[in-house]
Amino acid sequence: MDKTTIDKSLFCLPWTQTILGNHLDGRVNFMALDWLTRVNYSPPMLGICVNKQHASHGAILSTNEYSVNIPTVDMVEITDYTGLVSGKRVDKSNLFEVFYGTLKAAPMIIKCPITMECRVTEVVSLPTNSFFIAEIVSIFSEERFLTDGKPDVKKINPFLLTMPDNRFWSIGDCIGKAWNAGIVLRDQQKQEKG
Amino acid sequence: MDKTTIDKSLFCLPWTQTILGNHLDGRVNFMALDWLTRVNYSPPMLGICVNKQHASHGAILSTNEYSVNIPTVDMVEITDYTGLVSGKRVDKSNLFEVFYGTLKAAPMIIKCPITMECRVTEVVSLPTNSFFIAEIVSIFSEERFLTDGKPDVKKINPFLLTMPDNRFWSIGDCIGKAWNAGIVLRDQQKQEKG
Repeated sequence: MDKTTIDKSLFCLPWTQTILGNHLDGRVNFMALDWLTRVNYSPPMLGICVNKQHASHGAILSTNEYSVNIPTVDMVEITDYTGLVSGKRVDKSNLFEVFYGTLKAAPMIIKCPITMECRVTEVVSLPTNSFFIAEIVSIFSEERFLTDGKPDVKKINPFLLTMPDNRFWSIGDCIGKAWNAGIVLRDQQKQEKG
Repeated sequence: MDKTTIDKSLFCLPWTQTILGNHLDGRVNFMALDWLTRVNYSPPMLGICVNKQHASHGAILSTNEYSVNIPTVDMVEITDYTGLVSGKRVDKSNLFEVFYGTLKAAPMIIKCPITMECRVTEVVSLPTNSFFIAEIVSIFSEERFLTDGKPDVKKINPFLLTMPDNRFWSIGDCIGKAWNAGIVLRDQQKQEKG
């Protein structure tokens, strides 16, 4: 075994790239966001990790609302831009055409194939970041991104970020079906135990 | 604008597939895990979402420790198997060869190119799931998965899950550099503001 420890910040989970939307002092604001996950099955809830130094952190604390927008591969440059400049110094309100659902401070990007509006239910304060746990109020898409009424990742064409190499990646090939690929192994094991 | 709301559970963020490791009543146990994220920048912290009905939920509550293991594309079947059968009914302790770091109840999978041992610092109880916030105690890899001492996603060869279509995906092509691809746009905007 040739295992070696590496720097604890250097793990290489690919994160799906998203754009966080919020209202900063009443103005539409955006930020590149990679650290997020579903945190509850039913009702569907989402959690996002935002550095306390970011303008978006204060914005969400003051409104308790945010949006999460999934950009497509052809939006790499503008997505990266939202993470390069701070809302504290630069007005990003005109970068994208937006629309709203139920919430007043969760601007969603029309050009993004999947957008979600979220209402914060709990804030977990950690040393450098807060983790904003939220109810998903609604999710929007368009017919052209769906197959049988469900979002189709090949039509959505999202992209990923890996750190610390800081590269964006497209989605590759389908390599199997989940809750399915392991069935042969399950049946083998059952027989062995037989 | 042709936006339409879709079922709130149907969002199609690709999740990086991992395998959760824990000790269930003193026995090594594993579970396919997709809902996780970094939750703090410094120190590096990780949060994972586990359904309260899963055996791993009680296991982590009782030990406050877990591991997160990143499997490779050629481990699709066995990874899927860990999510198909419950530790309540099936002994999964012999599925993988494991090793340990500092923690006693965070078994790590030798075959996985990146493995992390984590100590829980906070449990957020939500309706159907708990979100386990943890300090990353250490991360292990091997020289052959690194480039310039850092994990290289092309060498690691992880895979992704999309729901609700329940498909596994490989990583595709590099489509740009982060904190870089937006620089041209930033400079353009600066000039316009002049």
